[in-house]
Amino acid sequence: MLIDQDVLPSLARGCAILSAGGGGSPKIGLLAALQAVADHGPVRLVSPDELPDDHVIMPLGMVGAPTVSIEKISNGDEGRWVREAVEQVTGRPVAAIMPSEIGGSNGCEPVSWAARLGLPLLDGDGMGRAFPLMPQVAMEIAGISPAPCVMVDERHNVLVTYPTNGHWLEKVCRSTAIAFGGRATSSEYLMTVAEAKRGAVLGSVSKAIEIGRTLQNATGDPVDELLEHVSGYRLLEGKISDVERATTGGFARGSVVVSGLRQDGGRLLRLELQNENLVALEDGAVRACVPDIITVLDTQTADAIPTELLRYGQRVTVVAFPCDPVWRTEAGLALAGPRAFDYDLDYRPVEELLGTPT
Amino acid sequence: MLIDQDVLPSLARGCAILSAGGGGSPKIGLLAALQAVADHGPVRLVSPDELPDDHVIMPLGMVGAPTVSIEKISNGDEGRWVREAVEQVTGRPVAAIMPSEIGGSNGCEPVSWAARLGLPLLDGDGMGRAFPLMPQVAMEIAGISPAPCVMVDERHNVLVTYPTNGHWLEKVCRSTAIAFGGRATSSEYLMTVAEAKRGAVLGSVSKAIEIGRTLQNATGDPVDELLEHVSGYRLLEGKISDVERATTGGFARGSVVVSGLRQDGGRLLRLELQNENLVALEDGAVRACVPDIITVLDTQTADAIPTELLRYGQRVTVVAFPCDPVWRTEAGLALAGPRAFDYDLDYRPVEELLGTPT
Repeated sequence: MLIDQDVLPSLARGCAILSAGGGGSPKIGLLAALQAVADHGPVRLVSPDELPDDHVIMPLGMVGAPTVSIEKISNGDEGRWVREAVEQVTGRPVAAIMPSEIGGSNGCEPVSWAARLGLPLLDGDGMGRAFPLMPQVAMEIAGISPAPCVMVDERHNVLVTYPTNGHWLEKVCRSTAIAFGGRATSSEYLMTVAEAKRGAVLGSVSKAIEIGRTLQNATGDPVDELLEHVSGYRLLEGKISDVERATTGGFARGSVVVSGLRQDGGRLLRLELQNENLVALEDGAVRACVPDIITVLDTQTADAIPTELLRYGQRVTVVAFPCDPVWRTEAGLALAGPRAFDYDLDYRPVEELLGTPT
Repeated sequence: MLIDQDVLPSLARGCAILSAGGGGSPKIGLLAALQAVADHGPVRLVSPDELPDDHVIMPLGMVGAPTVSIEKISNGDEGRWVREAVEQVTGRPVAAIMPSEIGGSNGCEPVSWAARLGLPLLDGDGMGRAFPLMPQVAMEIAGISPAPCVMVDERHNVLVTYPTNGHWLEKVCRSTAIAFGGRATSSEYLMTVAEAKRGAVLGSVSKAIEIGRTLQNATGDPVDELLEHVSGYRLLEGKISDVERATTGGFARGSVVVSGLRQDGGRLLRLELQNENLVALEDGAVRACVPDIITVLDTQTADAIPTELLRYGQRVTVVAFPCDPVWRTEAGLALAGPRAFDYDLDYRPVEELLGTPT
């Protein structure tokens, strides 16, 4: 399959839905990808079976606060600088680029780097969504080392880190992203194609494209058609009545209150944010929580609104749907369940909390 | 010349005098060096003329807040880890270790790494004193690149940075030192032996040893004998009456007031600190300022007290003496003059401010 100018808008819409509000606004990644594909031609989407087993899969993504990445964008050369360092330190050729996370801009922008470098894009990612922390990837669960990690900024500062584990990856790279001004481009959990077959969340790029196409082709209520496609739940339809958000410690953190309208009039839903929407609460009870995917949609278009663009007065529908199964394992929940974000609550799957999809 | 257990105490005392209060307590570096020399034998002190021109000089030092380095010490393997990375990324053998700064613990601890690695120590350093910021070295003035910089912590986290310039070296490495817990071991401004001949402050290790010997052999007032040896000035003899100090942004910052005693009774001297003693003020007038060396001595022993160990009630004599000439050039003052530390004042040499040495 080729990712070209026709496919990219679908990919961007799908990445936004899978983002849980994080990964940066896909509009930025979409613009970068459209330009790169116009300049260098479409990008081939490949499965690991099409690549040499001992070559390198290079995960790529933006690290930092999405609030910052709206204004501080890539200059386009980051992918090349990362690749040069990756091939030098691993001594192996890069076979394909993979989005570190499929959610948000991070799901689209790798297409721009792939186009510029003439590399294919692996149909997969590290999360099947977006998460705030760098070690929250399926590769960590599969025992793939986070080292070496290559990080660059748009000025061509380059950093090659060999963290002893995912905890130190996060500490060192987060502080560097802050030092760089709030965002950086990074590749970590480098792996061979053979390792990617067991380590990555495969199929997530085509999944995002399919979600986007469902929205593009919707003939009825796009929210309804989306929810049917992803086996999702409508948590609340309403209006954003309060937004509290700050860029601290390299993250966009805060909480948002949605006041119900129409059939949900009189209800209040509260979302807790750390880059992504992590917990949805109503009357003190959890209605959905991480690692399941909570996304805020524009009620009219069903387009996802990233956490950094949530504003008072927006008419939204909050939806939730199941995460990739890797996150529901014991190791997955230890890495990315509610307690990994300091919420004192146990994970319960969204379908258990909410019953049959609506 | 061999640096052995007899020489080390003199070196440590001299490094403390040259430190301007920074570089960490030399007691810690001295203990590490004594142990390493006992285990592995003495270290050869060499001039660049004794080394192959195309081999690498590896500057080494602690980066971070001296307040932290009192408790968070090296584990002894840092020098080896740095050397491994340095030889890998430069593709050249390391000819000798050089202290990044001769001041404080940073002047002594490189002896421990040299002993453990079986390498000689270059008779030189990057500053001829201690400075707070990483690019404040003579190599920066000589146009030697700060990249690559290799940084490690005691857990074996390793970082290889290619900052675009000294400003980004400081930003990235400072934030990493903070992420590591407030201190890290680092090598930057790597250079060939040929480059070190013009880029380093040569002779500073033997200069420190000579200063230490002057104190060891003093028969009269050690402060007087020291001042004669370094062409220095007695700013004030007194008692520390106020200490304001905080560990912020990876530095120990604050100010200290010394109330005059004996012949200086009734006078007050205020020191401004950023890891090092940077400015000495009396009645609003500058009595001495960076890059000249302001050191606080124990009045009885003439041992220097590092900024992180200054305490209320200590009987001290504050002295000042000229820095290495490289810092009095236009480029030197731009890099490490008072305005480089945000003090709104012009540099005047200590001998111009204070007249004939006393």
